[in-house]
Amino acid sequence: VWDWKIHQIQAVDMNFDTTSIIETAHALADAAAVLTLAHFRTSRLEVENKVPGGFDPVTVADKAAERAMRDVLKERRPDDGILGEEYPDVASSSGITWVLDPIDGTRGYICGTPTWGTLIAASNDEGPLFGIIDQPYIRERFVGGFSLATMTGPHRDQLLQTSKTATLADAKVFTTFPEVGSKNEAAGFHDVASRCKLTRYGMDCYAYALLALGEIDLVIEAQLNPYDIQAPIAVVEAAGGKVTNWTGGAAHLGGCVLAAANPVIHAQALRILSRYAA
Amino acid sequence: VWDWKIHQIQAVDMNFDTTSIIETAHALADAAAVLTLAHFRTSRLEVENKVPGGFDPVTVADKAAERAMRDVLKERRPDDGILGEEYPDVASSSGITWVLDPIDGTRGYICGTPTWGTLIAASNDEGPLFGIIDQPYIRERFVGGFSLATMTGPHRDQLLQTSKTATLADAKVFTTFPEVGSKNEAAGFHDVASRCKLTRYGMDCYAYALLALGEIDLVIEAQLNPYDIQAPIAVVEAAGGKVTNWTGGAAHLGGCVLAAANPVIHAQALRILSRYAA
Repeated sequence: VWDWKIHQIQAVDMNFDTTSIIETAHALADAAAVLTLAHFRTSRLEVENKVPGGFDPVTVADKAAERAMRDVLKERRPDDGILGEEYPDVASSSGITWVLDPIDGTRGYICGTPTWGTLIAASNDEGPLFGIIDQPYIRERFVGGFSLATMTGPHRDQLLQTSKTATLADAKVFTTFPEVGSKNEAAGFHDVASRCKLTRYGMDCYAYALLALGEIDLVIEAQLNPYDIQAPIAVVEAAGGKVTNWTGGAAHLGGCVLAAANPVIHAQALRILSRYAA
Repeated sequence: VWDWKIHQIQAVDMNFDTTSIIETAHALADAAAVLTLAHFRTSRLEVENKVPGGFDPVTVADKAAERAMRDVLKERRPDDGILGEEYPDVASSSGITWVLDPIDGTRGYICGTPTWGTLIAASNDEGPLFGIIDQPYIRERFVGGFSLATMTGPHRDQLLQTSKTATLADAKVFTTFPEVGSKNEAAGFHDVASRCKLTRYGMDCYAYALLALGEIDLVIEAQLNPYDIQAPIAVVEAAGGKVTNWTGGAAHLGGCVLAAANPVIHAQALRILSRYAA
């Protein structure tokens, strides 16, 4: 039986100061938002390419936002570790490591789409305890962990609760790129998607927010990094979802990820994806 | 030489009351927004399927929003025609026809994505004179025509101005579905996309807003209806872009559409797409 509350129990056992972690996470999102918004849709936006011969964009906004978050942690929680996309790891002496992606969806960000997000997770070795998916342009913040599963937004605030969709034929499935990953990973995704009601692309981390909101039923991705998935795991599981890799194991180290609205639809997608797992 | 101002000249020649048209268009967007937002991300949302054996969703929100817009027109401009997605055409005795799509991107809407839009165009037989792309969840409104090219948004208002990107190798290209249309239409899109810097999916009419903002360079779609493209034509051309079909002719009747940031990049994409035109 899947029980996301195991993380809450762990937190109590280890006597984490959950209030400090929650407040710090919001302070990190606020600090990042100032910089991501300052550069969003501006001609000042310079784009560097991380992969010669390919195109893996990183912007001044990615780097500035991650530096701002590291400054907040240095001040508030100097004993915690940091695993961020753009700068070297910092070891943890507290047992907590912050897993940060200043802009998840940099391609979408440099195109002006409002569905990128800042990803913030407070994690231990077992995975994320608490996470935030923040979309500051729309002013939406999705929060999960320590008994919280909430969204604040421009029109109303609400509790997060995943859907009860129980069959693939009724499911809405998202992934960011139709190519997904390797040819075999793409085949696995499209094997599931061909049985679903509706397939959509292009949302990056925002798809996990829609899953936590109960609006969609599955997010399937491949070749993720830990900082791409730890905050989404915290938010989706707090809302009632189940997130694993394609063999049903822990997903917090990245790779191939299956995020589902509930254990029933998770099992149906996993039965197919496990045939394609490396 | 491409000159979008021809529409302004027409309007002056025909003595249209441009203020009335502009004010009515905003009133239509306001009326639709009340209903699209009331149903967005709610469990009350019922989805009907327009195509047996397929999936072409229409919601109570689509229908209610279009009825609300028709009520506004009956009151304000009863002599104008109406071409809407959900209800029968109304003939024009004024020379102006309103071309309405209450929710462009119904699939995205029923998934909770904030990149659907309400499309409103005031057109004559030659095409759109004035148009609005409205995204009421984010509170963004993109307006083009009668010498206006503006965006109002949650953080700042701004003039719309398309990009100066001059080569496909530097271009960002969008389409809604990777399948695009027929096999031949998909081949045409992917022939252009393979030469571009970056390809993204899933934005529906919001992609044309990003084109008008100067954030992306090309939107290429197939099998569009007139109500899918007339408002985008007005907004993109007012911002400096060029929109035609895949043989370089007028695009306001729908079908295969190439929307480009400027005439230079338009010509490069058209050279390729014209080989795939029916």
